[in-house]
Order: sequence, then C-alpha cells, then structure tokens
Amino acid sequence: MNQHKHVVVVGAGFGGLRVVQKLCKQPIEITLIDKTNHHLFQPLLYQVATAALAPGDIAVPARAIFKRSKNVHVLMGEVVFVDKDQKQIHLENGERRSFDYLILAPGISHSYFGNDAWEKFAPGLKTLADALEIRERILMSFEKAEREPDPKKRKRYETFVIVGGGPTGVEVAGTIAEISARTMREDYENVNLDLLEIILVEGLPHILTAYDESLSRKAVRDLEKMGVKVMRNSMVTDVNEDGVRIKVREHTVGNGQSSGTKEMFIEAGTVIWAAGNAASPLLETLNVPLEKDGRLRVDADLSVPGHPEIFVIGDAARQVNPNGKETPAIAPGAIQHGDHVARVIRADMAEKERPVFKYFDKGSMATIGRARAIAQIRNWRFSGFFAWVLWSLVHIFFLIGFRNRFRVMAEWFWYYLTFRGGSRLITRKRMEPEPVLRDQE
Amino acid sequence: MNQHKHVVVVGAGFGGLRVVQKLCKQPIEITLIDKTNHHLFQPLLYQVATAALAPGDIAVPARAIFKRSKNVHVLMGEVVFVDKDQKQIHLENGERRSFDYLILAPGISHSYFGNDAWEKFAPGLKTLADALEIRERILMSFEKAEREPDPKKRKRYETFVIVGGGPTGVEVAGTIAEISARTMREDYENVNLDLLEIILVEGLPHILTAYDESLSRKAVRDLEKMGVKVMRNSMVTDVNEDGVRIKVREHTVGNGQSSGTKEMFIEAGTVIWAAGNAASPLLETLNVPLEKDGRLRVDADLSVPGHPEIFVIGDAARQVNPNGKETPAIAPGAIQHGDHVARVIRADMAEKERPVFKYFDKGSMATIGRARAIAQIRNWRFSGFFAWVLWSLVHIFFLIGFRNRFRVMAEWFWYYLTFRGGSRLITRKRMEPEPVLRDQE
Repeated sequence: MNQHKHVVVVGAGFGGLRVVQKLCKQPIEITLIDKTNHHLFQPLLYQVATAALAPGDIAVPARAIFKRSKNVHVLMGEVVFVDKDQKQIHLENGERRSFDYLILAPGISHSYFGNDAWEKFAPGLKTLADALEIRERILMSFEKAEREPDPKKRKRYETFVIVGGGPTGVEVAGTIAEISARTMREDYENVNLDLLEIILVEGLPHILTAYDESLSRKAVRDLEKMGVKVMRNSMVTDVNEDGVRIKVREHTVGNGQSSGTKEMFIEAGTVIWAAGNAASPLLETLNVPLEKDGRLRVDADLSVPGHPEIFVIGDAARQVNPNGKETPAIAPGAIQHGDHVARVIRADMAEKERPVFKYFDKGSMATIGRARAIAQIRNWRFSGFFAWVLWSLVHIFFLIGFRNRFRVMAEWFWYYLTFRGGSRLITRKRMEPEPVLRDQE
Repeated sequence: MNQHKHVVVVGAGFGGLRVVQKLCKQPIEITLIDKTNHHLFQPLLYQVATAALAPGDIAVPARAIFKRSKNVHVLMGEVVFVDKDQKQIHLENGERRSFDYLILAPGISHSYFGNDAWEKFAPGLKTLADALEIRERILMSFEKAEREPDPKKRKRYETFVIVGGGPTGVEVAGTIAEISARTMREDYENVNLDLLEIILVEGLPHILTAYDESLSRKAVRDLEKMGVKVMRNSMVTDVNEDGVRIKVREHTVGNGQSSGTKEMFIEAGTVIWAAGNAASPLLETLNVPLEKDGRLRVDADLSVPGHPEIFVIGDAARQVNPNGKETPAIAPGAIQHGDHVARVIRADMAEKERPVFKYFDKGSMATIGRARAIAQIRNWRFSGFFAWVLWSLVHIFFLIGFRNRFRVMAEWFWYYLTFRGGSRLITRKRMEPEPVLRDQE
C-alpha cells in the first residue's frame, strides 16, 4: 500500500468530486478535503434560499458517496497553506499531509469589490449556510411586513434587492417573485403584494452576459412579466442595514459612453449579493503569479506552471485554449477539468504523454421561473417552456444520488400540483425588540 | 365584525393550535402568536436532532395551517407581558394587543437547576434550532474523531452523554446508538465504533418514571443491547466544555437511602440536556402564585384563579382532578386542554355553564430504537415490535398535513430498506483552528 501514490484533492465541488470518482478504482490513495462535510449541487442552491427545496435535497455527505472506496479518505477541514517544496498541505489546526499529486478545486466566492463590510447586510449565495441565512431573511421580511401597521415603514420590508444579473441573481429574483405571487398571497393578510418590489441590479448594460443578447432580452421580458424590476447600467456604491445606494448611468449613447449618472438610495429589508467573483485565497499560498481576479492560469494539462504535480481546476482555474476560448465557470467546465486531471494522472502512471485539455461546450441554461428558462446550445438558442423542461431534466439527472433525484422530482411535482413551495420554516431568527444593528457597529 | 370577541392564543404547540382549530369557525377574531413561525411536532424532534428527519418533515408554518380562516391572524412575535387589568398583552417591540379571552400555551423548557451556564455545553432539545445544533454537534464529533490520530484524545469525541432518562433522553440515546452502529460504521474509517460510549444519565433509580417499572426495566435492557450505558442514581454536578461531572449514589439500601456516593468526571465531546422542567417566565408576569416549578395551577375549567378570561393550557398548566390525578405533560394532555378551552368559550358565548375539565388517559408510548418501543395504555402494558408499529402509526397519524405524513413515511420506509439515516449535513459548523472556548470565557 505504501508505494501507492497519494493524491490530495481540495474541494468536494463538481471538479474535485469528479477527479476522485475517476481515480478511486486505481491503485492510488486519495484524500478528499472539504471545509464542509458534503458535496453541494450548487445550481439548485437558489431553490434552498427561496424555500423551494430543503438542504438535504441538493447535498450529499462526501463520505456517503465514497463509502465503498477503501482507498478514498474523506476529511472535513480547511486547507490553509500549500507547501510546494515539501509537497505538503497544512490544515487549519496545523496538521500536515504529504501529497504526490495535489488537485486544488476550491471554487470562487462573490466579491464585494473591496467592501467586505457589505457582506453582513447583503449575504452571498455559495454555501448551504448562506442559503439558509437568505431564506430566513426573506421569510422574516414578510413576517415583519405583516406586523408593521405603518405602510411607509412596511415598504422597507416589502422591497427585495438582488445585486448581480448573472444566473444566480436572475434565478433568485424570479423565484422570490414567484413565491410572493403564489404562496405568500395566501399566507399574509397585511402585505399588499402589489406593493412588493423585487429589484434586480446589474452594472452592465445586459443581464446574463454569457448568453446571446436575444436571450438576455427575453429574460428581461420574462422577469418584468413576473413583476421583477430590472435595473441595468446600475452600480452599487454602498450597502448598509437600511438598503443600497445605486449609481445609474442614464443614457448610453452610440459610442458606448454614458451621458449622465443618477444616484439613488433604495430602502430594502432584504439585499442579496450575487455579483463579482473572487478566487479562493488558498491559491495565493502557492506563491506563483495569479490573474487579477485571483484565479490561476493553468497550463495546457491544467497543472500549475512549473509544478506538474499540482493542478487547479474548476472555477478557480483560468484555462485558455490556443484559439483564445476559455472554460466558463459553470459545472460542466469543472466536471471536464476533473475528468482531464484523472486522465493526466493515469497517463503519468502508464508513463505516457499527458493529454492537452480541450473544453467541450455542451451549452448552458438558466431558469427564470416556473416554466420559463433560456438555453443556448452551440448555435441553437431557445427559451420558454421547452427550455425549462430541458433545464429540469438535466438538473435532476446530474443530482448525485437516486434518493435526491426522487425527492427533488417529488417536490417539483408537488409544487406543480399545489402551487405551494417547500418548507417555509424560520428556525434560527426571532423577532428582536429593536433593530439595533447600527448601534452595534 | 367589531363586536366579535377577540381571542389571543400564545403558543402554536399542540394545545394552542387545537384551541384555534376548534374556534376558527366561530364568529370570533383569533390572533395566534408564537416566537417561531411554525407548529412543531415535538415528539419527533429527536429524529431531527439525530439526522433521521429534516426540519420540514415535522414542522408546518402556522400561516399555512390557517390560510383559509380569514378570522385567524397569525403573528410571529414574543409576548413578554400580560396586563391582566387592561386585558392586553405586550409584545417584544412594545406593541400591545387587547383581548377578551387570553389562552396561554407557552410550554416548558428544560431546567438546568440554576446552572444556566451549562446550557452552552449541553444544549436542550425544544426547538428546531436546538435540534439542528445538536445534530451538528453529533456529526462534528464524528468528524473530529475521524481526524484525531491519538486514541486518547479521540476518546473524548467518541463519548456522548445524554442527561435525563425521560422519553426524550431515551429516544436520543437510542437513536445515536443506532445511527452509530449502522450509518456511521460505513462512513468513518478511523472511528472504532466498539470504543464509542453513549451514556444516559438519570438522577432517579429508574428511567421513564411515568411508565410501569416493568416497562422501565425493559427499556434499560433494550438500551443496553443497543450499546447504551444507562447510569441511574446519578446526578450531574457540573458541565463544562470537556464533559460532565457526576455524583453516583452507589448502593440504595432497603430504606431508600443511599449508602455512599462516588464522584466521576466523564470526558465527552457531546453532552445533550434532556432533564428538568421549567415553565415559561411569561407566567410570572400574571402576578399570581405559581407552583415551585413555575407552572400555574389552573381552576377546574383551566382558567387562572380569579381570572375567568385567562386560561393556561398544556405543559405550563398544572391541572389536578378532584381524585388527585394530574394531566401529564404530553401532547394528548395539551390537545385535550385545547379542546376544553374551546368548549368553555363556546359555552360562554351560548351563556351556558362552563364544563369542568377531565383528563382522558389514552395511554403513552416511548420508542427506544428501530422496532423497539414501550407502550402503556391504561392497564395494558406491552413492548417490542408491536409497540413500535403502534408508535409509528400514531405518530404519522397525528402529524399535521398530508405532505408531512407522506414524507415521514417515505423517510422511514427508506431507512428500513437501506439502513441509512436521512440528511447528515453539517451546514453551519466548521473545523476551527483550536478549541478555545475556555479562553473566550
């Protein structure tokens, strides 16, 4: 056993999980380390945040996935340092583990553009804890609105701002609009749902920039039909407990320059952050040059330049093909990276030449609401009900585990039958005597 | 509408919910106030704590239950004061609501016998937040044990102490033993499950004192077969982050006095508190004499002596029949109280005489593990598989909502087929660099 190579994989997301799945039948010892104890199906995380699904529907303990692979060791812990020279990783408690191969798949988090103080008022959506926090904030807003007799004060709780017009922002905004219109209308008697404001704020002139402009426009129309106000060309300049300050470029003239700006403050009880990307600080400990956004530009085999035994995969890697095309930061990209690194390691073991990575574009999809989605598969673009059915099938198919697939299908079917979302439970938050956040600062 | 009586119900547990269900078709305005936004099926809360069920399986938003009753107003908030003279309740934010009838159903919490500092190290199990906290502590203990190479240090994480040999303590201890033996054995390679210690600590000479002694002895035998160490005659004298200190009365001689005591300290990574009862401090604001344990002894119609418009029901009430029998602090007791208060209010409305409450003993049941339970129905006592089937059927039947019933049945059936418990996700806790709890004090 001891002469077996030891592969350490950091991160149990799509990329990290795939490497382990593809190597676990080889004569290799594998250690999979993650800060959490589970693999999370992130594309459906917004459904946990909006109370449509339960955490257990979209996450599986990493141990459960590899319980039959005796050569796979799952470790819950945080890797804080990579010692390239000693070929060791350091864990949060000072513990060290040696590796022959290291695969870093730490993912990315949202970026507050240097204003980390905003996070407290506008949580991001990357982990199950984030999703549960956002869910409780949304539900608490409705509860507070229900109790507030003064319509002017109530307005604050009836306003939801989502920052960032990427897939996550669009999905969250669409789902809040949907649950408000259906589930909440029955539940809250004092909340006037016609006064509800759901505002999606995007700094660029278009939302869903990864998609064709026609699909982006279709998404805006769908969102507006659902009652979401889409603000484009709008930069967030401040976030505090009362809401967000926004600078809007008013007109964009022919040459792409804006002719004027307008500042406004939107009072909002709930602000959700889905903008910006920042790669994991773990990459900095490699002590090699990084891209401006903190990602590491990998070699053709996905290894770190000068370190063929260390790989970076998934969202944290910047992979550029000779034709200039890059792997997008989506699940299929991470999965293909994982497949490739497993192939590279097998090639090394067979003393063959390492293959070169090439991203295969399977298309991408985003959902906007019940029975509305957009999809772009190579040059084929479509939207509406068929795109949504395809989206549903693909997402159920890729969920890890039969049981989760069954449960998510049952939940969606139930939602279809009854128009009622999943568990709208507030487990942690309580009504507090006074909102004294500002005083605590 | 304005001449309708206004009934305020505090607490959406079994008793409070039942009053509202029985009055909601009357020409009455009802306000149901609870600190949380849901009705919780507390008898199954231990299954959430032990990761067998999800929070959404055993809780339903109170709003969802009464969404079709326009005269029922659900309010999430905390009642902090009862002003008997003004017939008003005060909420946590200073808001006041007037009532014609007030029904207090605030329940009870665990008592740390004056040592509230213990709560931090040994959480109780009364709310969904408690259950999720305990679940994460249990799972984190396994994760820490898995990572700890030193068997002496690991022992601490392999020891679970449950304080209190009532139904909750027995159910928690039994379920931890069960998930350890089945699910955890596959998942953790370094944890030696034979070294695992699950210790149930009870101060009295018997566990499950509400049951016949023969059933109590049967429960001890069942627990021991499952690997739970049952320590009777054992008082907890201290709890800190390292474990619990216990004073054991060594021999009980014929006259019931103990012949000697022994002190010991049990190092334990997880301590769960399921002992003692303390009624809600809200009752103190009524400014009437209370029992030693904080409960209020109610009149024959369940009203507060001298205040026929205020009722206390459920676990917080001490109700004594003329024959000296008391309503036990279990769900059927609270439900019967709720039924009765609804009858009293209807009698008042019809200007009839108020009926007198009489508790109808439907029996009681406790489960010890998969396919093991004890039941006592009047003079009929039984245990084992049949008691467990009955327990399962009764608990599924009384769950609120078809959907929950379906999901819990599906979960239990799945567990039967696969021996695999539900969602073992750790959503909030992380591995911390050092356990520095003591330094923070």
